[in-house]
Amino acid sequence: MIGIDWGTTSFRAWRLGADGTVLGARAAARGILAVSDGGFAAALREQCGDWLAEGEDRVLLSGMIGSRQGWVETPYLPCPAGIEDLAAALVAVPFPGAEIRLVPGLSARDGQDVPEVLRGEETQIAGLDFADGLVCLPGSHSKWVRLEAGRVAGFETYFSGETFAALRSATILGRMMGDGPTDLAAFDRGLGRAGDPGHLLHHLFGVRTLGLGGTLAPAASASYLSGLLIGHEVGAAMAAGASVTIVANAQLSPLYARAVAARGGVATLTSPDAAARGLARIGARAWC
Amino acid sequence: MIGIDWGTTSFRAWRLGADGTVLGARAAARGILAVSDGGFAAALREQCGDWLAEGEDRVLLSGMIGSRQGWVETPYLPCPAGIEDLAAALVAVPFPGAEIRLVPGLSARDGQDVPEVLRGEETQIAGLDFADGLVCLPGSHSKWVRLEAGRVAGFETYFSGETFAALRSATILGRMMGDGPTDLAAFDRGLGRAGDPGHLLHHLFGVRTLGLGGTLAPAASASYLSGLLIGHEVGAAMAAGASVTIVANAQLSPLYARAVAARGGVATLTSPDAAARGLARIGARAWC
Repeated sequence: MIGIDWGTTSFRAWRLGADGTVLGARAAARGILAVSDGGFAAALREQCGDWLAEGEDRVLLSGMIGSRQGWVETPYLPCPAGIEDLAAALVAVPFPGAEIRLVPGLSARDGQDVPEVLRGEETQIAGLDFADGLVCLPGSHSKWVRLEAGRVAGFETYFSGETFAALRSATILGRMMGDGPTDLAAFDRGLGRAGDPGHLLHHLFGVRTLGLGGTLAPAASASYLSGLLIGHEVGAAMAAGASVTIVANAQLSPLYARAVAARGGVATLTSPDAAARGLARIGARAWC
Repeated sequence: MIGIDWGTTSFRAWRLGADGTVLGARAAARGILAVSDGGFAAALREQCGDWLAEGEDRVLLSGMIGSRQGWVETPYLPCPAGIEDLAAALVAVPFPGAEIRLVPGLSARDGQDVPEVLRGEETQIAGLDFADGLVCLPGSHSKWVRLEAGRVAGFETYFSGETFAALRSATILGRMMGDGPTDLAAFDRGLGRAGDPGHLLHHLFGVRTLGLGGTLAPAASASYLSGLLIGHEVGAAMAAGASVTIVANAQLSPLYARAVAARGGVATLTSPDAAARGLARIGARAWC
């Protein structure tokens, strides 16, 4: 089968053997925002036409491709939900020559009955072992997922990634910021600040005054802000000392691991292939 | 004398009698960012040349005109500081035909020894009675000022205004937002949400899910976000039930008053002429 994680800005495809072995992998900057006029079938043929021609006739898609802006909108599956529930709720997409199905996202309610949604992360979680515990999937909208009895019991979203990007691009804080790799000393300083008393909205102004006062170098201030936001997120999302599985790319994984450690917790990092494994597992249940 | 509140984006000038009476007032979109190549003397003549020609020879300036990007950079006066301290710390600016002086801003340290600064607000506070208590000056960088024994004892800044603008202009939350006057029901709903358990970074994602779920109308979502941020700020900056004097324009005053009331507090609104009164009072001490 072919498994595809098709997000807002990225397209990642895997050719998968019957036992889930990854036989081929490719990625392209063909997220749903880069596909015009609903040309998703054409984009799929463009990226994976050779695999289809070679006989692959089952394609499983996850991510924002199942949103209102995607190919076919799939309804969210309410939590609690496990891998069998996902496999039973796939949505078929008409496509000549192959069976195409979409993995639905998940919905939940937070403690105050405000809605929560995710798309794509459910497939990454399906690539884990569904062991009970807490899973963190950082990003523009970081997801903190509680697994219980082999299913997703619920989850909570933090708007940290987009907040970081907006503060950097559209406020006076960003004017001082340089590019470049994360300055870990400045990141840790931001983490420490997040643990201080005081609200995030107050701590943010410190990015400016520490810069004006010369004790935070312009090249380090983006890393400090990153530590401040991730520290606030992790401090709110996990109990001190908890164990957390982190599903993230090579850039974010070590940063979240530092934040979890600063909170006295234990972080387990997973490989970034969780989505491929999840697609294989859901597909195996759907098509067997 | 002439008193001028010269900020980043605005220029407000008052002609003041010896007893502080406002004899004339004018405003222009001639903030320091709109004055090129340091042409502050020319901009002053352009806006107030008639008053100078009629014999005014004392000009007191406050606001960002005293910053590094302004006319002459004035050092911050450390707290605690009162009106006599401000009057004794004015900085003279050479100018043919008139005495021009700049009011310095104030500096402080927060509870964790992180620097705090303000410019312009010290003059608005000088226009109040310096009665002991808590003063809130909302804006891009909201200031919460503690007055004790007739002086500014210290203050704390919240980055709420710029955060609101950045979230609105540069994140997915803003895509749903309409323009128009504040929807007070949606604002109050955001205030209520700010009082819920959970971190601001989590509450922000609810702006999106409530909109997707159809229970928060696009036209109302900017007001909800405003209530959420102001509610978080006020909840962190004041103790429940406290009394607060609010120094703000006609748009922000009622919103902060609602947030203070939602926190069980008592808000006193001041007239927006506090800056003119403050300039008159500081000038009277400096030139008498």
